[in-house]
Amino acid sequence: VALQTVFTALLSVEHPIALAPMGDAAGGALAAAVSNGGGLGLLGGGRGDREWLERELTIVHQRTNRPWGVGFQSWSVERSVVQRALDDLPSAVMLSFGDPTPFADMVHRAGSLLIIQVTDLDEARQARHNGADLIVAQGTEAGGHGGGRATLPFVPAVVDLVAPIPVLAAGGIADGRGLAAALVLGAAGALVGTRFLASPEALLAEAERQAIVAAAGDATERNRILDIARDSPWPERYTARTLRNAFLDQWRGREDDLRADPEALAAYRQAAARRDLGVVPIWAGEAVDLITEATPAGDIVVALAAEAELALAGVGRT
Amino acid sequence: VALQTVFTALLSVEHPIALAPMGDAAGGALAAAVSNGGGLGLLGGGRGDREWLERELTIVHQRTNRPWGVGFQSWSVERSVVQRALDDLPSAVMLSFGDPTPFADMVHRAGSLLIIQVTDLDEARQARHNGADLIVAQGTEAGGHGGGRATLPFVPAVVDLVAPIPVLAAGGIADGRGLAAALVLGAAGALVGTRFLASPEALLAEAERQAIVAAAGDATERNRILDIARDSPWPERYTARTLRNAFLDQWRGREDDLRADPEALAAYRQAAARRDLGVVPIWAGEAVDLITEATPAGDIVVALAAEAELALAGVGRT
Repeated sequence: VALQTVFTALLSVEHPIALAPMGDAAGGALAAAVSNGGGLGLLGGGRGDREWLERELTIVHQRTNRPWGVGFQSWSVERSVVQRALDDLPSAVMLSFGDPTPFADMVHRAGSLLIIQVTDLDEARQARHNGADLIVAQGTEAGGHGGGRATLPFVPAVVDLVAPIPVLAAGGIADGRGLAAALVLGAAGALVGTRFLASPEALLAEAERQAIVAAAGDATERNRILDIARDSPWPERYTARTLRNAFLDQWRGREDDLRADPEALAAYRQAAARRDLGVVPIWAGEAVDLITEATPAGDIVVALAAEAELALAGVGRT
Repeated sequence: VALQTVFTALLSVEHPIALAPMGDAAGGALAAAVSNGGGLGLLGGGRGDREWLERELTIVHQRTNRPWGVGFQSWSVERSVVQRALDDLPSAVMLSFGDPTPFADMVHRAGSLLIIQVTDLDEARQARHNGADLIVAQGTEAGGHGGGRATLPFVPAVVDLVAPIPVLAAGGIADGRGLAAALVLGAAGALVGTRFLASPEALLAEAERQAIVAAAGDATERNRILDIARDSPWPERYTARTLRNAFLDQWRGREDDLRADPEALAAYRQAAARRDLGVVPIWAGEAVDLITEATPAGDIVVALAAEAELALAGVGRT
């Protein structure tokens, strides 16, 4: 028997697993593979690049007839881009990082479910106020941008705060044990990023995929350094978790010095232009320890669900 | 039926719950209450104050006939103090923070179980090398001193690394949902600190207990500032999670300035001497959200076990 939750019922999916809408990397091929595997594939619409969105929407339509959705970053996406996604009738639109207020009504009017990702309890209150149908509680373990709360204590706190709105857990979940943990913490499922980023369907350079697979324990850190180096306009409150690299080793704790060093910034841009793995951000969550191969995304969905059932069945039977 | 694990079998306890040996605060009354409730009470031997240890050992003997243990900080305790504890035949001795090598053999020779707490995978490898009978994987959510890995992804990574040595999960666990999560992540139980710190049996000023109970979400932070202010010799790699306070607001991100400001340090010492809650460290984990009353410790043990069983039984039944 599969794991049935409010999430699987609400989205008409088989398994309580959603693809994190990783900007750029979660394209149509990956979203469709997750949906075809029985989860909810979410396109990584990111800041709202129209050309990217058009192309990946086409691919998702070509490859799946199952429920799918799109994610955007609230601090940067334009309403017209969200509307363009809504025109294709996604089952859900997910908004992360920043104020989702400008988008809430348009999502509901289009008949899509509104998913809002939160990184602290104030954001969770705001998401409830915005009429979220589903709230993603993202822990600091997550790869890419995020906040400071850790998944294990944060998820039940959000569950209690926003009940009866269903919650997905995000951050640090890369295998079925993590999915099982999400469920017993009171979540209706898990939103998984890095594990899918390492799948062949993700839009990622092969060298970066291999770096994630090869990364050993304790290999990631949350930092603002790479956003400074990239001159990225991300709101300061959201730092980014990446694999450690030589550039981070050089500048850790010296963010102000980096900002004031035009030569270092120019050198960064040159190295980044040739995708030097010693400097570019490879977004990855803390659970890279648990990722040891580049598994096809559909297989990941099925494996996580099966492993979670095993983990749940095994407790107290020693 | 109770939750049976390798931990409950190894320690001959009823529930897969251990008291974090919080220095000073986890005295004989609290350790005995946890043991009498069916968990494993661990005295908080801290850096190894002999007078404190003698007094609290006497109390634990007076109040329980169940299995109990003692915890110490490896970076600071003397071997003779650990030997003093071993003379009273604890079921287990737990060593945290720093190199446990000087103590491993003496614990085993005395017939106690050796528990080693780790905060990253290198420490986990070292603990296995030291012959640990049980390894506590402590996440950054934990109150007091610790490291940077988060509990949810860290626990399964440690479980995989040190198998078949049993693992306890620590950090962020304050209710039965957290205990259930620990178990499905592959741990044999949970080590719980802050929830017990808020119990009436803990050696804590009533105002500090009430501050923990009253703390709302997102109320803690991990910092080095209060160790700098206290001129504490804690190894730099272990920062401390405390409730946020006015002093942290004042000095966050300005650690070097604080070190170089004798007036600010003198003012801190004066305020700390009168236990000003705006400056003193109130050690507390991220899960303070989930702690809303000062429950007797034995009741906490029973409640956590019952809640965990409910959480496990409820999954997939929506």
